[in-house]
Amino acid sequence: MKLFSYFRSSASFRVRIALSLKGLGYDYIPVHLVKDGGQQFGTEYRALNPAALVPVLQEDDGRVLTQSLAIIEYLEETRPQPPLLPADAAGRARVRSIALSIACEIHPLNNLRVLGYLSKTLGVTDEQKNAWYRHWVETGLEAVEAMLAGDARTGVYCHGDAPTMADVLLVPQIFNAKRFNCRLDHVPTVMRIHQQCLTLPAFAGSVPAEQPDAE
Amino acid sequence: MKLFSYFRSSASFRVRIALSLKGLGYDYIPVHLVKDGGQQFGTEYRALNPAALVPVLQEDDGRVLTQSLAIIEYLEETRPQPPLLPADAAGRARVRSIALSIACEIHPLNNLRVLGYLSKTLGVTDEQKNAWYRHWVETGLEAVEAMLAGDARTGVYCHGDAPTMADVLLVPQIFNAKRFNCRLDHVPTVMRIHQQCLTLPAFAGSVPAEQPDAE
Repeated sequence: MKLFSYFRSSASFRVRIALSLKGLGYDYIPVHLVKDGGQQFGTEYRALNPAALVPVLQEDDGRVLTQSLAIIEYLEETRPQPPLLPADAAGRARVRSIALSIACEIHPLNNLRVLGYLSKTLGVTDEQKNAWYRHWVETGLEAVEAMLAGDARTGVYCHGDAPTMADVLLVPQIFNAKRFNCRLDHVPTVMRIHQQCLTLPAFAGSVPAEQPDAE
Repeated sequence: MKLFSYFRSSASFRVRIALSLKGLGYDYIPVHLVKDGGQQFGTEYRALNPAALVPVLQEDDGRVLTQSLAIIEYLEETRPQPPLLPADAAGRARVRSIALSIACEIHPLNNLRVLGYLSKTLGVTDEQKNAWYRHWVETGLEAVEAMLAGDARTGVYCHGDAPTMADVLLVPQIFNAKRFNCRLDHVPTVMRIHQQCLTLPAFAGSVPAEQPDAE
């Protein structure tokens, strides 16, 4: 398999963790989101993914998968061991709900193109842009904390005592939060789980600094 | 089942469509996102969903489901007929990728609280706010159009000749786009499928104007 990835992209980071948790090797193909005006906009890459986003996972038979959560669900269906979703429907719904709370409520507001629009088109100051970033991370993680802290199904990880798709989404979001100096002392359960995840090689080896294109 | 819904919320709209496509009846519990400073922030509702978002689906045994895509996946697992995902893993990945392109790349930038932040905290003009809205819808739908128009698996609907989760996400997004007068002539495949979906009672009966709390 080939993973088209950018070291700092948290969507790429999610898929790197999922691949590693499942013990799957892959060729790392770097796509630089800033250099050359954004390599994801190149003709060759757009032929692979017209949405011009990373990551893309390409199977050895040429099959192309896009959107990090769809890729992770695909891996779960095609390489079920170890599972990243619990066995029961209610548990699966909870794990997906935590994952989507990050993927839909926090991350989309803070990606590169949105921050670019704020600066270039709306002309906000750097201070306002950073406040925007922190606002969505801090309030979004507060909601995740409430989901975790108030539920007996939370264990060593977000759901029970093995990592799931929820943890796979959580860790990259915390890396982003730290990069922008977000407040994190109001989400102790989130942070306990984050630290726990980083004791696992699948998480620790997938962090941005460990990637071949890290700067 | 009870569905806690706001007529205009497109996340609620998605779940209404999925329930109807599966022929499932439900009690409609309105949650007004604007009145009373936002009924989703009330103590009772927050006990149900600490994230203070609609929709919530509650099973008759009290089980609470949150996040529209997690709810739809849950319905798919617990009430598999008729299916909203194809049978093959690659097809499922494609449908989820289209759905997530809407749920993660377009919709989060344009919900009520984000527009509120732009106006109140960043002090942008109404004109700037509407341009922001249209920018993310128009560029986001362009990516969806490319996924649909360039793929032989696109049929009468987004994937083949029966509605899937991708169509369930598409239609509410087009309703939003129309409300804000977004340009749509550059996405002919999207619009053909949108019109096709509205010929089905499950879609037509789930539109905002048909809900008990419609204004």
